Amino acid sequence: MNKIITVSREFGSGGREFAKKLADCLGYKYYDKEIITKIAEETNLNENYIQNILNSDITNHFNFSYAHTFSYINQINTSMEILKLQDKILNEIASKENAIIVGRAADIILEKYKPFKIFIYASDEYKLQRTRKNEINDPNISDKELLKKIKKIDKNRASNYDLISSTSWGDKANYDLCINTSFIDIDVIVPLIAEYIKK
Amino acid sequence: MNKIITVSREFGSGGREFAKKLADCLGYKYYDKEIITKIAEETNLNENYIQNILNSDITNHFNFSYAHTFSYINQINTSMEILKLQDKILNEIASKENAIIVGRAADIILEKYKPFKIFIYASDEYKLQRTRKNEINDPNISDKELLKKIKKIDKNRASNYDLISSTSWGDKANYDLCINTSFIDIDVIVPLIAEYIKK
Repeated sequence: MNKIITVSREFGSGGREFAKKLADCLGYKYYDKEIITKIAEETNLNENYIQNILNSDITNHFNFSYAHTFSYINQINTSMEILKLQDKILNEIASKENAIIVGRAADIILEKYKPFKIFIYASDEYKLQRTRKNEINDPNISDKELLKKIKKIDKNRASNYDLISSTSWGDKANYDLCINTSFIDIDVIVPLIAEYIKK
Repeated sequence: MNKIITVSREFGSGGREFAKKLADCLGYKYYDKEIITKIAEETNLNENYIQNILNSDITNHFNFSYAHTFSYINQINTSMEILKLQDKILNEIASKENAIIVGRAADIILEKYKPFKIFIYASDEYKLQRTRKNEINDPNISDKELLKKIKKIDKNRASNYDLISSTSWGDKANYDLCINTSFIDIDVIVPLIAEYIKK
């Protein structure tokens, strides 16, 4: 059976950097936005549109107060189609090769592959600092506003995870290893985790 | 400054085994029940008595429904004395040498030493199996009863931790690394963690 590593992560904690470096270290294929690209290829939908749907709280699409307009039903159908395709693509990846997959509730979807499940998290201070450096370099956004954005992204991730899982996103019980990057140096820990996985 | 590693753990998860092996690997002094022995030496109280007090939910000692008898006040004084002594002994250890300390809310008490904080946990199934093998080998206790005992021990730990901390025992945010021993092999991961700490 192929070895599958899933990396779930809080926004701004460095989970993607961790996963990429771990993939390099192990010589495994790395999947993150590559999954969106694959969905786009199969649906002819725009990548940004797919990403927006997957990053939003999908449970909201089922909110009946929306009113049953055609566009609303259309929206549900598209979300469902994208989720089903994501599921299919993840299973294709896992059946093909050793891989590291970031997010996408891959730890739940690929349960039968007994993935090694890692959760990357950090303190609010660390995530603020890292997000300002990498993603949102806008001095007009206050720390409070930025933290609200970060928490909203994670809230959507949690919500979409809970949609297909009986357990909660971020609950350490679901993962083999939870790494707090506030003080742990990603460059130092990655080769050691790789060594563990190789054993 | 001396290097302090704190290992908090769910009962039955193998936290003590992990900590002992990590101490051996690093050549650090290991402290667990040794702290009880030190308190016993300084108070002339019986080790079991001290352990019972520290393992019980100390917050219950402050429960006023107990009625204000002499023995009740005496009990509070003893608990307080033991907690203060524990605090003093932990600080003495940390100021003297590199050490690994199991439990005792040492991660909070020794905060100023910036300890490397590890939390060891496992699934209920794993903890049941391990507890039956090591601590409670009684076929007359059902899994349900045994799990209740295990959860009660952890509940007391959580309660005593929360007494001196503004954060919650077991909340991954408080730790640098959380290791789920249900599938992670202690013998394989320990030398790698030791390597990380030495870097």
